[in-house]
Amino acid sequence: MLIVFEGVEGSGKTTQIQRSRDWFLSSGILDTLGNYHKPPPVIITREPGGTALGIKLRQLLLQEQSSSLQHRTELLLYAADRSQHVEELLQPQLDAGAIILCDRYTDSTIAYQGYGRGIDLALIEQINHIATGGLESDLTLWLDVDVTIGLQRARERGVADRMEQAELTFHQRVQQGFAQLASQHPQRIVRIDANQSPEAVQRDIQAVLRQRI
Amino acid sequence: MLIVFEGVEGSGKTTQIQRSRDWFLSSGILDTLGNYHKPPPVIITREPGGTALGIKLRQLLLQEQSSSLQHRTELLLYAADRSQHVEELLQPQLDAGAIILCDRYTDSTIAYQGYGRGIDLALIEQINHIATGGLESDLTLWLDVDVTIGLQRARERGVADRMEQAELTFHQRVQQGFAQLASQHPQRIVRIDANQSPEAVQRDIQAVLRQRI
Repeated sequence: MLIVFEGVEGSGKTTQIQRSRDWFLSSGILDTLGNYHKPPPVIITREPGGTALGIKLRQLLLQEQSSSLQHRTELLLYAADRSQHVEELLQPQLDAGAIILCDRYTDSTIAYQGYGRGIDLALIEQINHIATGGLESDLTLWLDVDVTIGLQRARERGVADRMEQAELTFHQRVQQGFAQLASQHPQRIVRIDANQSPEAVQRDIQAVLRQRI
Repeated sequence: MLIVFEGVEGSGKTTQIQRSRDWFLSSGILDTLGNYHKPPPVIITREPGGTALGIKLRQLLLQEQSSSLQHRTELLLYAADRSQHVEELLQPQLDAGAIILCDRYTDSTIAYQGYGRGIDLALIEQINHIATGGLESDLTLWLDVDVTIGLQRARERGVADRMEQAELTFHQRVQQGFAQLASQHPQRIVRIDANQSPEAVQRDIQAVLRQRI
């Protein structure tokens, strides 16, 4: 099962992914008869940077020096990272029955490169499909945080990569992209109110996971 | 004017590009009335690795450690290199009136990734189009060398990157790809017999260039 966590900077993805993993491992899975089953392996990963190659591409993408990066080049580099991730990690692990918790996937590309940078959405969907070979998430949790709160949290954390230095209006367009995607895919994408405390967010996530698994 | 040099390893592209540059600079250009004109700037470049980002991607692509590189990932990395190259160097220089001599371009991707690795040709054409934004070469010189001779030359040169370590049959498929492309695009692609001496090859190239410019 491929579970993706999406959201703007400071939406709390990292924290919530870790707590969700802990919850999976400690709670096990109850079947419809209420019997306990040991959970399958739970794997945390991310994009970009989920493979050895991906880590190098992540450095290229996020380092400040790449400010000369053209929009289409950026799109293609994210796609290369994703293609390698799908073939090297995601697909083999899914085939082996693992639960994968992934920090960002195809929706981030649509929100950031499409809504944020203004690249044609049809082109992005084409590239996403090439990169994934058609592999979609089974469930995407959109951690919906107010953009100003999210950026404030990211700043407090001391994170200041290229994405986070971009202007507020960029992040608002990205946010709008996630909202649009959630309304277009109500089955696959579930909105979580991420303005709440981490505990409350995790409680809402667990409620969704319990219902879906 | 974008002039691309294509061919398998050891076809003599590097040498012929340099000699063609020297010829352009020393001979100038004669118009239809036979008047001499100082040639525009002549720029030598290559793919992958024609930009700062491209050099990093070239290292990723050619280093032996990337043997775990998936075929689609490789295709997308070449496309990212090309996209940056077109937008940062090729298009602005063409707009400024330069003559560009480029070592490999879209046909190499079709020959190596398509015919060589077996990736769907329609997919490659789709990606090539995204990467180039539609920019095609004005003239492509295919240096057609016998594969065994080419590999022998490459070995003598002491070059042994990932591509050149691949097996002979792979290079034969690539060669077949170039032949196929040349027959599909007889106007754009001109075959040059590269089994000849460097001097004879350069003479044939100059004959084509004289005719086309």
